[in-house]
Amino acid sequence: MSSASSRIVGALSAPRLERRVSDLAEFGARSDGGVDRLALTQEEFAARRHLVEPFVARPGYVVGMDDAANLFVRRLGADSNAPPILIGSHIDTQPAGGRYDGAFGVCAGFEILEAFDGACEQTRLPVEVVVWNNEEGVRFSPGLTGSAAFVDPSLVGRFASLVAADGVTMVAARDEATRDMEMFLGTKGGRLQKYELARPVGAYIEAHVEQGPVLESESVPVGCVAAIQAVRWIRIVVNGRSAHAGTTPHSRRDDAMVKAVALANEILFAREAFDDDLRLTIGRWDTTPNAVNTIAGRVCFTVDMRHPNEAVLAELETRLARLLPSGSEMTTMFREPTAPFDTHLTALLAQACDDLGIKRASVLSGAFHDAINLSRHCPSAMLFAPSVNGISHHPDEYTAGEDLFCCVQAQALAVARLAGNAVDKEGAV
Amino acid sequence: MSSASSRIVGALSAPRLERRVSDLAEFGARSDGGVDRLALTQEEFAARRHLVEPFVARPGYVVGMDDAANLFVRRLGADSNAPPILIGSHIDTQPAGGRYDGAFGVCAGFEILEAFDGACEQTRLPVEVVVWNNEEGVRFSPGLTGSAAFVDPSLVGRFASLVAADGVTMVAARDEATRDMEMFLGTKGGRLQKYELARPVGAYIEAHVEQGPVLESESVPVGCVAAIQAVRWIRIVVNGRSAHAGTTPHSRRDDAMVKAVALANEILFAREAFDDDLRLTIGRWDTTPNAVNTIAGRVCFTVDMRHPNEAVLAELETRLARLLPSGSEMTTMFREPTAPFDTHLTALLAQACDDLGIKRASVLSGAFHDAINLSRHCPSAMLFAPSVNGISHHPDEYTAGEDLFCCVQAQALAVARLAGNAVDKEGAV
Repeated sequence: MSSASSRIVGALSAPRLERRVSDLAEFGARSDGGVDRLALTQEEFAARRHLVEPFVARPGYVVGMDDAANLFVRRLGADSNAPPILIGSHIDTQPAGGRYDGAFGVCAGFEILEAFDGACEQTRLPVEVVVWNNEEGVRFSPGLTGSAAFVDPSLVGRFASLVAADGVTMVAARDEATRDMEMFLGTKGGRLQKYELARPVGAYIEAHVEQGPVLESESVPVGCVAAIQAVRWIRIVVNGRSAHAGTTPHSRRDDAMVKAVALANEILFAREAFDDDLRLTIGRWDTTPNAVNTIAGRVCFTVDMRHPNEAVLAELETRLARLLPSGSEMTTMFREPTAPFDTHLTALLAQACDDLGIKRASVLSGAFHDAINLSRHCPSAMLFAPSVNGISHHPDEYTAGEDLFCCVQAQALAVARLAGNAVDKEGAV
Repeated sequence: MSSASSRIVGALSAPRLERRVSDLAEFGARSDGGVDRLALTQEEFAARRHLVEPFVARPGYVVGMDDAANLFVRRLGADSNAPPILIGSHIDTQPAGGRYDGAFGVCAGFEILEAFDGACEQTRLPVEVVVWNNEEGVRFSPGLTGSAAFVDPSLVGRFASLVAADGVTMVAARDEATRDMEMFLGTKGGRLQKYELARPVGAYIEAHVEQGPVLESESVPVGCVAAIQAVRWIRIVVNGRSAHAGTTPHSRRDDAMVKAVALANEILFAREAFDDDLRLTIGRWDTTPNAVNTIAGRVCFTVDMRHPNEAVLAELETRLARLLPSGSEMTTMFREPTAPFDTHLTALLAQACDDLGIKRASVLSGAFHDAINLSRHCPSAMLFAPSVNGISHHPDEYTAGEDLFCCVQAQALAVARLAGNAVDKEGAV
C-alpha cells in the first residue's frame, strides 16, 4: 500500500458512515423502522439536498445533474479533463423498503470523498459520487432508468413519458428535481452543473448490500461480485374450461388447475437436471375465476430463472416448452443476459481486501443493479456487504456497521489506486 | 292418469312457458344475452311485480310475502286450511348470469297455475308458487337465505344485518321490497298478505336447470334428483418464507409455492382412490406476495369436495390432513351433509314422467338449491332440465324449450296428483 492509499483508508470513519446511513433513513422514514422513499418524490428531493449539502461550499467540488435526473457530486482531480472514477448507487426505495438497499452504496461514496478530504489527497482523476435515478422502478416502471439512460441516451425520450400512479410524468418529475436542486444550490451560493449523458467514465464501482444469505452464512464481510446472473422471466398460461365444481363429472372436465399443478410440478423437478447455480422460482400464480366452487378456466403462472451462464437458461426454456400441455402458451416476459464485471477491476477489489486483511468471497449477484447498465459503458464492478438473514426490500433489512465499514475500506483503497495521486501518477484504468 | 290430471297437463302451453322465461329475462338483461339481477335490487323488484301482475285480479289468488322477503302467489284450494303444495325457485342471478338458473323453476310454477286455471280445476290443497329471496348470495352473502329463514325463523335476525357492497342492509332491502309490492298491489286493487315463516307445507317440488352436462350427454330431458351431494370446502394454507428469487440459493429457501404445488399434486391424485362419484376441485389459489421475482411466503388454496355419501368426504379429509407438510394448516370452511330428497315424492315424479312417456334419469345434484333447506321442513324433491354444454352462471346458459316443457309436464302432473281434485279428494301427501 502506498502511503497516500493508507492515509486515505486511515481517514475513513465508521461512525461517520453509520451516521450518514441513519440520517438518510430519516427521509421517508416509516414507523416500523423501514423507509418509503420513492423516486422523485418530495422525500427523495429532500434526501438529495441533505446528501449534497456538506459539499456545496467545499472547494474542489461540483454538483451536477443530467437529463435522466441522475445526481453527481464530483471531487475534482488534477487532470481536469480525465474521466472520473464513479462510485455510488441509488436512494429510492421500495414502499416498505429498508435502510441499506441503495442507500449504503451512496453513503459509502460520500464517506470515501470525506476520507480523500480528510487525508488532503488530491487525486489525478476526478472521483465522483452518483445517485442513480429510479433504480427500484416502483413509482415509475421499469426500474434502473437512470443508469440505463446514462448509458444509452436514446432511452431518455421513452422514459420521459412514463407516468406515475399520481399522474405525474417522469419528465415533469425530473424537471422538478432539477429546479429544486438549482434553487437549493442557489441559496447556498452554489450552482448546478449540467452533465451530459454517456460521457466517458474511467471506472464504476458500486457497493451494495447482498440482499441474499450467502455472505452471512459464510461469515465473510465483503463479496467481490464476479457477475450478475442472466435472468429470464417466463409466463405460462394454461387454458381449460370453467365449469361448476359440483355439477361437472371429472370425465367431462378440462380443469386448468389440474393441468397447471401437474406442469408446475414437472417444472420444479426439471431444475434437478441442472447445477446448483440455477435458480428457478414460480412466484406468481393467477387463477380465473379463482372461486372455491368453480373449475378453473385459466391459470397463469410465472417462472423466474437465473444462472451465470445464459446458455443454461436457453436449454431450460427449451425443456419447459416441451412440457406444456395442449392449449397452453409460454411467453418470455423479460430476458437479461449475464452481466460479467470487469476482471481487472474485480481483481483490484480482491487485492484491496487482501491488503487490508479483510476476508472476502467471490459471489454472483442474483438481483439487478445499476452496475448492469454501467458494465456496458465502462469497466465496472460491485462489492457486497452481508445482509442479515438475507432480508431485503423489507423494514427488517440490516447489515452490521462493521461489515459496511469493511466494504467501504476495500472500495476506498481500490478507488485511491484507480484515481491515483496527483504527484506520483499512480492512477491507471 | 285421471281425467282431471290429463286436462291439467293438456292445458299447459310450451309457447306461454317460453314467453314467460324470455319476458323475465328482460329484467336486468345484459347486452350479451345474459341477466344481471341481484337480490332485492330495483331490477328484481320490477321482475317481482311483472310476475305477480297476471294473478292480482284473478279470483282465488293471494299474493303474500314473509319476513325473509320470500314472495308467494297462492292459488286457493277447496280446503282453505290445508298446507299448500309449494313449487318455484328463485329469480336472483349472478352478475353475469343466465336466463334459466332459478328463473325456469319460477316460470314453471306460474305455468302450472295457468294450466290449473285453463283446465278450470279446483284443487283440494292450495298450490303456491314461491320466489325464494337471495339464493345466489351475490349481493348479500351467504346465499339461500330466503329458504333457510323460511325453515328456521331464528336466522332472520342474523340475515337482517347482512350488508351489501352498496351499504344497504338486508333488512332495509327487505322492507323496501315489501313496500314496493304493497304499493303495486294497491294500485291494482289488491292487497299483500303477510305470510308466516316455517308454516306447514304439504310438499315442495323445485324445477331447475341441471347446470351440469349429464342429462344432455344421456339425451334425457328430465332428471329426477335423488339427492344433493354432501359438500365440504377446505382451506389449506402452506407457509414458507418470502425471499428474493435471484439472491436466495435453493438450499436456503422455504418456498411455499414448491410445497403447495407438491401438495396439490398429491391431493389431486388422492381422488383416484375413490369412486367416480367423488368430485374434487381446487378452484382458488392465492399466493403472497404473488410477484414474479419473490419466493412465495404463503400459498392458500381451497378444496371443494362432493360425494353423495358424506362418509367418503370424511375419509378423504382425513387422508388430506396426513399429506400436509410442516407449517401448513387445514381448516374446514363449510360443510353440508347429503340432502336426500323424499323417496315418495321422487317416485311420484318418476311415475309422472313414465305416464307421460318422457324419458328420465335419476341424477344427483352437485349444486346447492333452496330445496336443500326445504327438505328439512317438508317432503321435497327436484326435477332437472338439461343444460346445453353444462353451462351455467354464464350468459351462454341455455336449455331447449322442449326440454323445459317436458320438465313442466312431469311437474304439473305430480302437483295435480298431490293437490288433488276438490271433488274426488285424490290429493294426499
